[in-house]
Amino acid sequence: MDYNYEGWEGFEGGTWKKEINVRSFIRHNYTPYDGDDSFLAGPTEDTKELWDQVLELSKQEREAGGVLDMDTKIISTITSHGPAYLNKDKERIVGFQTDKPFKRALMPYGGIRMAEKALKDNGYEIDPGVKEFFETHRKTHNAGVFDAYTPEMRACRSSHIITGLPDAYGRGRIIGDYRRVALYGVDRLIEDKMEQKATTRSAMYSHVIRDREELSEQIRALQDLKTMAASYGFDISLPARDTKEAIQWLYFGYLAAVKEQNGAAMSLGRTSTFIDIYSERDLKLGKYTEEEIQEMVDHFIMKLRLIKFARTPEYNQLFSGDPQWVTESIGGVAIDGRHMVTKMSYRYLHTLNNLGAAPEPNLTVLWSTRLPDNFKRFCAKTSIETSSIQYENDDLMRFTHGDDYAIACCVSSMRVGKEMQFFGARANLAKCLLYAINGGVDEISGKQVGPEYRPITSEYLDYDEVMHKYDEMMKWLANVYVNTLNVIHYMHDKYCYEKIQMALHDKNVTRWFATGIAGLSVVADSLSAIKYAKVKTVRNEQGIVVDYEVEGDFPKYGNDDDRVDSIAYDIVHRFMEHIRKNHTYRGGIPTTSILTITSNVVYGKNTGATPDGRRMGEAFAPGANPMHRRDTHGAVASLASVSKLPFIDAQDGISNTFSIIPGALGKDDQIFVGDIEVDLGCENGACATPTLFEGLDTDEQ
Amino acid sequence: MDYNYEGWEGFEGGTWKKEINVRSFIRHNYTPYDGDDSFLAGPTEDTKELWDQVLELSKQEREAGGVLDMDTKIISTITSHGPAYLNKDKERIVGFQTDKPFKRALMPYGGIRMAEKALKDNGYEIDPGVKEFFETHRKTHNAGVFDAYTPEMRACRSSHIITGLPDAYGRGRIIGDYRRVALYGVDRLIEDKMEQKATTRSAMYSHVIRDREELSEQIRALQDLKTMAASYGFDISLPARDTKEAIQWLYFGYLAAVKEQNGAAMSLGRTSTFIDIYSERDLKLGKYTEEEIQEMVDHFIMKLRLIKFARTPEYNQLFSGDPQWVTESIGGVAIDGRHMVTKMSYRYLHTLNNLGAAPEPNLTVLWSTRLPDNFKRFCAKTSIETSSIQYENDDLMRFTHGDDYAIACCVSSMRVGKEMQFFGARANLAKCLLYAINGGVDEISGKQVGPEYRPITSEYLDYDEVMHKYDEMMKWLANVYVNTLNVIHYMHDKYCYEKIQMALHDKNVTRWFATGIAGLSVVADSLSAIKYAKVKTVRNEQGIVVDYEVEGDFPKYGNDDDRVDSIAYDIVHRFMEHIRKNHTYRGGIPTTSILTITSNVVYGKNTGATPDGRRMGEAFAPGANPMHRRDTHGAVASLASVSKLPFIDAQDGISNTFSIIPGALGKDDQIFVGDIEVDLGCENGACATPTLFEGLDTDEQ
Repeated sequence: MDYNYEGWEGFEGGTWKKEINVRSFIRHNYTPYDGDDSFLAGPTEDTKELWDQVLELSKQEREAGGVLDMDTKIISTITSHGPAYLNKDKERIVGFQTDKPFKRALMPYGGIRMAEKALKDNGYEIDPGVKEFFETHRKTHNAGVFDAYTPEMRACRSSHIITGLPDAYGRGRIIGDYRRVALYGVDRLIEDKMEQKATTRSAMYSHVIRDREELSEQIRALQDLKTMAASYGFDISLPARDTKEAIQWLYFGYLAAVKEQNGAAMSLGRTSTFIDIYSERDLKLGKYTEEEIQEMVDHFIMKLRLIKFARTPEYNQLFSGDPQWVTESIGGVAIDGRHMVTKMSYRYLHTLNNLGAAPEPNLTVLWSTRLPDNFKRFCAKTSIETSSIQYENDDLMRFTHGDDYAIACCVSSMRVGKEMQFFGARANLAKCLLYAINGGVDEISGKQVGPEYRPITSEYLDYDEVMHKYDEMMKWLANVYVNTLNVIHYMHDKYCYEKIQMALHDKNVTRWFATGIAGLSVVADSLSAIKYAKVKTVRNEQGIVVDYEVEGDFPKYGNDDDRVDSIAYDIVHRFMEHIRKNHTYRGGIPTTSILTITSNVVYGKNTGATPDGRRMGEAFAPGANPMHRRDTHGAVASLASVSKLPFIDAQDGISNTFSIIPGALGKDDQIFVGDIEVDLGCENGACATPTLFEGLDTDEQ
Repeated sequence: MDYNYEGWEGFEGGTWKKEINVRSFIRHNYTPYDGDDSFLAGPTEDTKELWDQVLELSKQEREAGGVLDMDTKIISTITSHGPAYLNKDKERIVGFQTDKPFKRALMPYGGIRMAEKALKDNGYEIDPGVKEFFETHRKTHNAGVFDAYTPEMRACRSSHIITGLPDAYGRGRIIGDYRRVALYGVDRLIEDKMEQKATTRSAMYSHVIRDREELSEQIRALQDLKTMAASYGFDISLPARDTKEAIQWLYFGYLAAVKEQNGAAMSLGRTSTFIDIYSERDLKLGKYTEEEIQEMVDHFIMKLRLIKFARTPEYNQLFSGDPQWVTESIGGVAIDGRHMVTKMSYRYLHTLNNLGAAPEPNLTVLWSTRLPDNFKRFCAKTSIETSSIQYENDDLMRFTHGDDYAIACCVSSMRVGKEMQFFGARANLAKCLLYAINGGVDEISGKQVGPEYRPITSEYLDYDEVMHKYDEMMKWLANVYVNTLNVIHYMHDKYCYEKIQMALHDKNVTRWFATGIAGLSVVADSLSAIKYAKVKTVRNEQGIVVDYEVEGDFPKYGNDDDRVDSIAYDIVHRFMEHIRKNHTYRGGIPTTSILTITSNVVYGKNTGATPDGRRMGEAFAPGANPMHRRDTHGAVASLASVSKLPFIDAQDGISNTFSIIPGALGKDDQIFVGDIEVDLGCENGACATPTLFEGLDTDEQ
């Protein structure tokens, strides 16, 4: 039976009226836009005034050393803070994380020491009562993880063969379907969750009990969401009735999530085409003008730019900034063949002009050859002007995820409200190769970290022997790595469960069990050197190989040479096969990614010399990139090598950092709108705004 | 390899020196005592003075309405309070739960509302910060349970077909092997736990992660135990070196448990013969005199009498008092044939003379035909004088549990440190029979609680039809019941884990999944009436059977008549078979018990009229007892009926409340020391001191 609400008047019906199904609503109601950007409106006076206020506060924040104010006592929940405003009369879209803008919330569920340190390093002191309580009575994710880690896991963590594990910070990478709040109103969502709870399995196995408890938590979170919205004067029990409400309801959903969690990536989803349906209706009805709608969008995006978390300087250093990854996915093509660009896609991107360039929200265009030319041109133009758009390959991802997926963080694709990710950072495969050669002894510390396999004792490395040992060592590493992640995600669910985000998901969620690879090009080139040149080992007094001398030349990854590209392919495939051999928490589907945009420097620093001639401590290439200067056959050959990597084995994303001198792309009015068949994204690195057109002035950012 | 410590000098070696194995230590070192009670010493002046102080404080407590002082803010943990004394200079054994005697601790892990209510009902107000914290950030056992309960579970709970569920109070029934603290010292125990943690399975399945986390919690609890002892000036890292230390170390272990948990039964174990080994050594060495040793024992028992918890009046009402069930199991026979009575068995019981009669600790004699006559006489004499000894059948329980088990609460037998119980209160089988007749409709509320099976529509009840429907309804009830308990124990482990108690257990613990039966004799007699007499149904306007008219006589349970006794046997067996069909949390081994010493009144109150002629609201017989006045063939026939029940199906205990007029047992010097082949115990009822010889003056209690 169809539900019906006042807010739905004029919308075409579909499955979405019977069940929670935003995709069905969009499919039946959106209006593809093929026109150009001439309809767009500039910023209003109110927008300018508010943004000036933000710029002033940002300046004060920078002057204060990066943080303007922090909560030291109130623990952040959906309802912990009353309403806050920049200027209540001028804000079309309202809502802040705490009781005033720029004040960072206290979120100790992930780890009390991390929360304490984030305060301390910014000159604040945690309330002693809160500290004592969390140390004694309320265990945290971090404490739980360390209670279960094995000495081997700790050793792998210390030696950096596994790094960036989300065991001291929120895992993130979960996108609540915030559109549901607008389309259905919270009461309908609660009703749906009640029904889900009523239909769990009836034999009380522990996982059934866990499901029931989580659903109860979700229902409470939805009730809290209503309470929070009410504090701003909005009753969001029922569906939104126009554009303004739709944006506001949706934003409240997101706001609840960022009040509850400080995950490493708190992405927004794929909201523009959804909102466009409301604005098309309002424009037709003459309810709002284009200027008014753009103003709402500007104010919404302004709010997203002001999402802030209390974090440690180390965290910011690792991620090169103070990033939130409020990623919004725009465009793409529907599986029925229609492109999904709407006027709202333009409006979202247009905020980069109206408010100026900014790294947040991470506006990501789902690129397809079939996007309308006008939109391609608008994107390129906006990129040139602002360097603030991320592009990802929709033609590739649509195959796996359909047409209602979004990007979490930088490249992690997931169907909104139906899939989530257990984030898993990275395994250092280059270091793993050195462990294979040295029988599990760390080449830097000299400690036995890996298993005590027989090391290689010959002076010159034999390809078959090394490959065999490497395969065994990868098998070991995959096992420790996956089990470490099992511990992390078990404890995250136990002590730091994402209540509101999961409340905006289906009951049966597909969980991607994400792993990651670092050092791929180093490994490929090293193995190529061993196979096609001669590699002599250099040992220290203890007999550990600490350096290599390469005699002769060898094919290098990044030149479209199958001799070495096939090695890279093989390594990704083998490692993923080893990953798959292990039990994964909650039935997570193993994936991997090849992404390191900034931490490749740190990985390199913690890895000894490698058989490809790379010196100890020298940075790795980012992501799936060829090593710097080794791709000597031009851009196309370099991209071709990367594009050979098996996406099926690296579904969490393959990144290639690629810079082109603007002049190479032709004149301003004939800008490049071609098709690049690799994901452009990033990992935990600060690539929220990958500069597709490097060399431009990015001071604005 | 054998460990060796100063405290072990003079002890015979054995497995216990290699591994944690208290039983091996006892077996190799204890000295059975066949003599009489003439060696015993009276109370010292210090003992008398301390006890007078206790009596005075008890008087003040009674005058204050039952509670003298309560913590409203400090949440009890092993280390939450500094040391407390009655009179430091006179106390041989020290340690209180809070910072002063008679002050009750605040323990909200089980449920914040229960903790709040316990305070409020006694005139205290919970600290608002604590309340807010537990309501918002630190979930409790009670909150977790209600998040996972199904509507069916709630309905069964409301209609009282399942009752007394430990979902708002601690489950208890876990006995830490407190002797380990004395025998091994805490450092060795921590070492052992570290080894256990190092040898969990290496694939990180959720249950392995849970085990690892629990072991970490246990290790921390042991460290806290050392810290707490240190606050009293004792270093308990190493084994105790004499009787005083052995008692003190052991008591610290127990004290840590009652600082951490307010379980429904916090029993002590089987400690007297263990302690005797130390005192025998000290007596031989001339280190302590008999007077000194008795004084230590008196002071130890005095401490056990002062264990107190903050509880609600409802709780106390249900359990008829303010009971702790500090049960200590004394005597029994070893599996090598030697009895296990030692001088210390006498000394423990002798406290009833030195300090006067008392319900706590619940001194329980493990009775066997093979106990030495002198000891039997001493027990009987002490029982007559104090009415404060509980007796249980060692000859029966030894078969299942060997010779190092103890009683938790009243009859729940478990091997110390090797077995624990998931306590499960009771299913009302009499009400279940009425549900079978009425098609799942509750005969009192008229609500559909059970499944909508076809009700019986005939005027007269047919035995085969009733039995068939009853079997189906028991199957349903067993399913809901076990699943309800699964929820409870999952949440108890999650939110209210017994860290220190489990730290004093082996790694691989056998978990008894205890269920319970109420109304057995009512059911047996009802089915007998249907089978052997004629039972006419009386229906209300809605057609629900609300009364029965019995025409003719029928055999009644309690008269050694196999026609009905076989029905009782059959019901216990069938219900247990249905219980066994269900998944049990953590591999718990299903057992049941037939015990209700006080709550039989409440059960009866919540149950309509039954086909045996029992009126609506009329009390059930306690435990496995025949219904009052129906056992007309004398005591032996009555006991014979009870003894036919299958212990294999009711391993958690069968209780029979049995009163004999003293005169019937002969004169004072020829007291009854025979063998009763049924457990004498109790359930959650206030039977910590079942009065074997009822009619005596029990005012002292």
